[in-house]
Amino acid sequence: MRDVAVIGVGVTRFGEVWNKSFRDIGIEAGMKAIEDANLSGSEVDGLFIGNMSAGRFINQQNIASLVADYSGMASNNIPATRIEAGGASGAVAFREAVMAVASGMHNTVLVGGAEKMTDLDDLSINSILDSTADAEWEAGMGITFAGLHAMIARRMIHDGTATREEIASFAVNSHYHGAFNPNAQFRKEITLDTVLKSGDVASPLGMFDCAPISDGAASLVLCPLEEARKHTDSFVKVSAVEQASDSLALFQRKDITSYGATSAAAKKAFSKAKIEAKDIDVAEVHDVYSVSGIMALQDLGFFKRGEAGKAVLDGQCRLGGSCVTVNTSGGLKARGHPIGATGVAQIAEISEQLRGSAGKRQVSGARYGLAQSTGGTGSVATVSILEAI
Amino acid sequence: MRDVAVIGVGVTRFGEVWNKSFRDIGIEAGMKAIEDANLSGSEVDGLFIGNMSAGRFINQQNIASLVADYSGMASNNIPATRIEAGGASGAVAFREAVMAVASGMHNTVLVGGAEKMTDLDDLSINSILDSTADAEWEAGMGITFAGLHAMIARRMIHDGTATREEIASFAVNSHYHGAFNPNAQFRKEITLDTVLKSGDVASPLGMFDCAPISDGAASLVLCPLEEARKHTDSFVKVSAVEQASDSLALFQRKDITSYGATSAAAKKAFSKAKIEAKDIDVAEVHDVYSVSGIMALQDLGFFKRGEAGKAVLDGQCRLGGSCVTVNTSGGLKARGHPIGATGVAQIAEISEQLRGSAGKRQVSGARYGLAQSTGGTGSVATVSILEAI
Repeated sequence: MRDVAVIGVGVTRFGEVWNKSFRDIGIEAGMKAIEDANLSGSEVDGLFIGNMSAGRFINQQNIASLVADYSGMASNNIPATRIEAGGASGAVAFREAVMAVASGMHNTVLVGGAEKMTDLDDLSINSILDSTADAEWEAGMGITFAGLHAMIARRMIHDGTATREEIASFAVNSHYHGAFNPNAQFRKEITLDTVLKSGDVASPLGMFDCAPISDGAASLVLCPLEEARKHTDSFVKVSAVEQASDSLALFQRKDITSYGATSAAAKKAFSKAKIEAKDIDVAEVHDVYSVSGIMALQDLGFFKRGEAGKAVLDGQCRLGGSCVTVNTSGGLKARGHPIGATGVAQIAEISEQLRGSAGKRQVSGARYGLAQSTGGTGSVATVSILEAI
Repeated sequence: MRDVAVIGVGVTRFGEVWNKSFRDIGIEAGMKAIEDANLSGSEVDGLFIGNMSAGRFINQQNIASLVADYSGMASNNIPATRIEAGGASGAVAFREAVMAVASGMHNTVLVGGAEKMTDLDDLSINSILDSTADAEWEAGMGITFAGLHAMIARRMIHDGTATREEIASFAVNSHYHGAFNPNAQFRKEITLDTVLKSGDVASPLGMFDCAPISDGAASLVLCPLEEARKHTDSFVKVSAVEQASDSLALFQRKDITSYGATSAAAKKAFSKAKIEAKDIDVAEVHDVYSVSGIMALQDLGFFKRGEAGKAVLDGQCRLGGSCVTVNTSGGLKARGHPIGATGVAQIAEISEQLRGSAGKRQVSGARYGLAQSTGGTGSVATVSILEAI
């Protein structure tokens, strides 16, 4: 199995992008990554696209063919494959692309993630989000995606493993970093009070506990590690990319305040990369709700149960803090969450950090970075570890 | 890169299956394949699921997690990945699974394909099918998927490369074989007259030129070739699995009576397997419309342009005929076309043929088999070559 490198990254501005189509943003991200890798499009021999629901958001299935076509690569008959795994769609597409290069079946591949969500009404959008939970036994019974996460938060508060303030502080942390990210949907700091006083979405979670609805795209170029230097001096090594599953419905778990899929993927990833959680300098975690971010930090092994919230509230996960720096991109909350793009954008952020090209968001001397994505309420999770070269 | 073997196959009865859910048929096919491979579920370390549109057909995204959960494999946190590529979804899932084993990132994987289509009304179903074409420039303008294929048929007839009778004869060929397949949706022969006199769907194509709307699932177990004999004496080698793309919209092609993606994938596959079209004994091709079957036989190199229709009408592609035997399963037309399942069921049929376990459909002494799938109007195509051991 060959080692794999990330040699190019490209991310569009995330937000409510009403003046550009799915095609426009997908191509914009792809071109950026190809240019960043000093390649021409004709050197790319495979496309892997993470997308959750273009079939419902823009009535277009077969989206990998669309990307191949509009990027001009279909004229070379390039293989193009779309992956869907709910909120982890982009992250799983990254894993498939790593596998493609590692296997030798592909050499230089482009990973794209994109979602155009804001062209529908709120009710339709929420129905699509709910369909990543169990359609028959959760969504079909009326519970929303936000409602499921609210139950997790309530349980944590009931168990005494996090306070309402600690949970809310995760959004403050993400916004603090988002203010430095020119591509973030929300580029401003918020206070704890803003989160606590925001209108209820599903109590105790308010508006500012929830990642927004977003349009956006992100892209990466991968090649065998041993060939990376032919293209660029600015690349990172993929040390591990692991994936795990759990029950689709939340009620089937013994414990809803921890995601078994994240723990399982993390355990394998650390073993594969031969490092421990304490070695990670910078991490991007899937804070689709503030409570998801707190859980992730514990499931990944950065903190023991009941301690992540305290650390985040205390500012230890911010730039310059005493622990791992978390969500320098602004996370899903402030950078935005165009679903298929998210997992790819996380890898792009970690790559920039390890290359030392993250500008005002730079974690100084970052050597190891980690990205964690989930789909549904943790029914799928991925954990990737990247290493500076 | 490791060689890969198919060591187990499982296919459900295809048809209008109103008494079983998506979950039921998916698990049924998976269990059959695992039993056929003499494994227990706990030996499987990865799931790859081909599915086109559960998000719209049954309101369930994140379908790979659902399969992991309901198969009991989520309790081992098994990685589970869903692939979508329109009509080629199952075939591309097979390719990803081959890559996973070839790379060494997985060892024993289950490939599943499933679709539950008949629970919606006809208008909704057709809107979903149309969304594999170009949503903005084809479907959005009002042309249907059948209409696009009708234009291909008209052009062939205009060019003199196929007659209406020759095109119709592909459906007769598929039904001839379907009569021998206990899992086929339609298990009866039809005459040329039946096709020619069937009600217009999109002229010149009538009802009997079109694959039906179906429910069904299919499954395969793959492992490294060198480990296959540990599990079973009845396995086949995957000699090539290639994939290619073309423009999303039909009007952007120079020639609409040939699929460049099929030709490109076939060329690579024959080169990889180090054989030629004339070496293939048995083939499954993507006859979503009769005209697609005729095109496939030419694009794969079995016949020169203008000659496939004559051969099929003459019965040369039937069991016992003088050319390659085509669609012994009954093809999409008679076996049925539950979209995500189709590409997986094709590999299952070819595997059975090469193992010599195809019963009344057996092509005697079959050594090399080929499967071809397409998505959209040929915007994605896969060609796989399998070899008897």
